[in-house]
Amino acid sequence: MTVGELRVWAPDGIPEVVPGDDLVALLVAGLRADAQAVPDHALQDGDVIVVTSKVVSKAEGRVISADDRERAITDETVRVVATREHAGGVTRIVENHLGLVMAAAGVDASNTPEGTVLLLPLDPDASARALRAGLTAEFGVRIGVLVTDTAGRPWRQGVTDLAIGAAGVQVLDDLRGQLDTFGRPLTMTVAAVADEIASAAELVKGKASGRPVAVVRGVGHVVTDDDGPGARVLVRTGPDDMFHQGSAEAYAQGWKDALARPER
Amino acid sequence: MTVGELRVWAPDGIPEVVPGDDLVALLVAGLRADAQAVPDHALQDGDVIVVTSKVVSKAEGRVISADDRERAITDETVRVVATREHAGGVTRIVENHLGLVMAAAGVDASNTPEGTVLLLPLDPDASARALRAGLTAEFGVRIGVLVTDTAGRPWRQGVTDLAIGAAGVQVLDDLRGQLDTFGRPLTMTVAAVADEIASAAELVKGKASGRPVAVVRGVGHVVTDDDGPGARVLVRTGPDDMFHQGSAEAYAQGWKDALARPER
Repeated sequence: MTVGELRVWAPDGIPEVVPGDDLVALLVAGLRADAQAVPDHALQDGDVIVVTSKVVSKAEGRVISADDRERAITDETVRVVATREHAGGVTRIVENHLGLVMAAAGVDASNTPEGTVLLLPLDPDASARALRAGLTAEFGVRIGVLVTDTAGRPWRQGVTDLAIGAAGVQVLDDLRGQLDTFGRPLTMTVAAVADEIASAAELVKGKASGRPVAVVRGVGHVVTDDDGPGARVLVRTGPDDMFHQGSAEAYAQGWKDALARPER
Repeated sequence: MTVGELRVWAPDGIPEVVPGDDLVALLVAGLRADAQAVPDHALQDGDVIVVTSKVVSKAEGRVISADDRERAITDETVRVVATREHAGGVTRIVENHLGLVMAAAGVDASNTPEGTVLLLPLDPDASARALRAGLTAEFGVRIGVLVTDTAGRPWRQGVTDLAIGAAGVQVLDDLRGQLDTFGRPLTMTVAAVADEIASAAELVKGKASGRPVAVVRGVGHVVTDDDGPGARVLVRTGPDDMFHQGSAEAYAQGWKDALARPER
């Protein structure tokens, strides 16, 4: 159940991150400075630290030349889901090696130095675990960590943020078995609480303001002792996926297969 | 840009809503009681009130017999996107008359008396405008209102909340033209801020706790003087929709069309 107030803030003392940086140290410094300015912001048990994947990518050196962007997208692509040509070029919606389905496989040209693009972290769950270990050691409180990225979605305009890495957070809040207000079991509802936390954090981080970290207080009920399975369990591809191919692609495949069948 | 802290809370003094109820009056009473208990919760300019569509549906009498559930889904369906049979029955992902693509056309069997199901509000943007007018008249502050519903999404486990109605909220925060931290224009980013606010609100409302309303403070930069175009502008279906049909459905259509073509 949820009680109490949700509070989300984004410290502004995190400098530009470059490859090789000790991201834990930078986060610690930024969080400590923020707590100096606002004592109430000192980390507490149950806080969730939400870190934009960009700074994780930068620290981990997942930076390549912009000239290599198209090849990088191809390299990061496990499976093409849909493509569309438009005035500005070709949009490729693909599944990447993390099981994430997004445009350009998550390769990112913004908020990185001119001439470079960022790849997603190799293993955002591992990155989240490392950040959690470092922050826990420093602050001595029971926290969760999310690594988040931005993506579009079918049937909706605009982008929202998703959790692509997690440690110490129960990313799915399974309400099945709980009762609704009429005493009947909720049978259908598994809330993607980590994605909701990611979106809440984005409301204070923003994309133009240089604040890559947010603290979310009030969702302690999904902070766990163990690191847990991470954000990989939020992925839903495979035989269950009713949208494993874009409509045009699936149509073309059906057409092709029909014509290729042996003649009777 | 985003600055300051985000705060979200869910007053617990809203009673069960039944058809014909004056929802504005119930919300006013609940918000006033909450402000008595926590003076800081008195509504301020820039607050966004997030209302679960269920209570809007109930107040508006969008309640039908559970026996009519399947027919209701059919009636609410403008276009079938994808279907899948499974152990529990048939899942129908359809586009409804609001342009929303969701399971069962948004017909809802939880948090409603035994033997009934809820239809979505007929016009959630109009509902949001009415709520906004009523709350503004009562409290005399500049607020926004969102009406929200829960939905799954392709490629991700779990459900999140979306804005299906809006008044006084700029639902899409167009960051194009703004500069990133390297001084380069953000060309790709339109944030679905209303859906992010909806998800943040769900973290405090929950589904089992009987709190259908939340107040979100700290996103005043997207609260507008006018009611604005509402949440309908968040819909992205039509010729732009790369997933207008599920993969199996599109494949079958391609197969069928290939075989139906005139023989050469």
